[in-house]
Amino acid sequence: MTYAQRMIETNPSGAAVDASTLVECIEACFDCAQSCTACADACLTEGDVQMLGRCIRLCLDCADICDATGKILFRQTAFDAEMARAALEACARACRICGDECEQHAEHMEHCRVCAEACRRCESACNDVLTAV
Amino acid sequence: MTYAQRMIETNPSGAAVDASTLVECIEACFDCAQSCTACADACLTEGDVQMLGRCIRLCLDCADICDATGKILFRQTAFDAEMARAALEACARACRICGDECEQHAEHMEHCRVCAEACRRCESACNDVLTAV
Amino acid sequence: MTYAQRMIETNPSGAAVDASTLVECIEACFDCAQSCTACADACLTEGDVQMLGRCIRLCLDCADICDATGKILFRQTAFDAEMARAALEACARACRICGDECEQHAEHMEHCRVCAEACRRCESACNDVLTAV
Amino acid sequence: MTYAQRMIETNPSGAAVDASTLVECIEACFDCAQSCTACADACLTEGDVQMLGRCIRLCLDCADICDATGKILFRQTAFDAEMARAALEACARACRICGDECEQHAEHMEHCRVCAEACRRCESACNDVLTAV
Repeated sequence: MTYAQRMIETNPSGAAVDASTLVECIEACFDCAQSCTACADACLTEGDVQMLGRCIRLCLDCADICDATGKILFRQTAFDAEMARAALEACARACRICGDECEQHAEHMEHCRVCAEACRRCESACNDVLTAV
Repeated sequence: MTYAQRMIETNPSGAAVDASTLVECIEACFDCAQSCTACADACLTEGDVQMLGRCIRLCLDCADICDATGKILFRQTAFDAEMARAALEACARACRICGDECEQHAEHMEHCRVCAEACRRCESACNDVLTAV
Repeated sequence: MTYAQRMIETNPSGAAVDASTLVECIEACFDCAQSCTACADACLTEGDVQMLGRCIRLCLDCADICDATGKILFRQTAFDAEMARAALEACARACRICGDECEQHAEHMEHCRVCAEACRRCESACNDVLTAV
Repeated sequence: MTYAQRMIETNPSGAAVDASTLVECIEACFDCAQSCTACADACLTEGDVQMLGRCIRLCLDCADICDATGKILFRQTAFDAEMARAALEACARACRICGDECEQHAEHMEHCRVCAEACRRCESACNDVLTAV
């Protein structure tokens, strides 16, 4: 069991939406935040940093939003559906934009391929929770 | 001059939207993030923490989104209007929700009054940039 | 394979210290940041929030340091051993302090038990990287 | 009055160390976090990004630690001197390392000059609180 699963399970409030849908989204948010942080750094080392300016920038943006969204979803005290929706919609959009960018470099750079995958999974997980909220 | 002003002015990309509107929003985001962080903590010390659970939680959420939005707006490299909009819309909504909550406690707790003010200013500044983008 | 493993493996810089030691520490930092974020929230819902003020506060602090340290360790471009050490030492100390506090509540609250475990693992992983750097 | 001043003043716990020393450090931490975030971005747009890889990376690291430290110092509930010290020592070191790097580019890039100044001020403010704690 992951820490996200265990922490949601042991929270006295109980999960505000279906626990497995929620946990999948929390993990997808944090995995995406981490992948984007690492992808921005990996791009810095690549030869043509100029070309990757947009990728680095969008990865940093996406990491910030995913991280905020993961934390917001993790909190079960006095769950507020409108706050969750605000974060989830921003996160799904950020992941789409960043995923589209990383995908363009996926053939030549493995880190962009993995990061694009993390973005797609996070976008999809956010949309699943949006449907459930 | 504030650091936000100086950093936007010295950025070789130039500001993507009107510089003073942008700087006001960046500062409002970070001021709100800080106020929410401090208000959540101040609520913890108040007598009736149970009653303040919702306030603490929304302050933590709002701080996370404001902080992410402030960073995203600060980046001028390869500015992406859709990414900015995603963050700004989430931030304006988060500030409205958190500001409404803090306002309910503003009469009895000074920190909630100051925090509500920071939320209102940030919501308004986000909407100004949304119009300009 | 986790995202942390895949992102370290695909980074063109190569890991600055033994990759498996590094990945274990990055994952321990982010797991601990998440557990502390969730434990602070779970404590808010518990009956005696007053008694848990210190636990909530230390969990928020520890989450902030673990998150910063995880990101710093994830960056491989122009790795700086002194910067890594500064973060790792702070993180090991924060995890010890927070782990000691959570452990005191571990018998009565499962989320504190899981969080204490995450803190211990992270403290130990930070010390392992400190030895390797 | 800044928001940091107002929030410390209205906190029912009272400041754990001399309020003006504390507020100066909180503001220096957040100003430095913002300057480093913006400097990393500005470096991305400069011609020779390769040369600036180290500067970008250290700015991102320093921003993460300054942000965590600012939040930790802002919390007055159940203040823990050892937790504060762990963060402050890491922050002072991070600011020294990042300030030294930015200073090397200060002559040619205004954003690095401003960022170096923010780092020096933050390092000094952290040392002042370390003396007072």
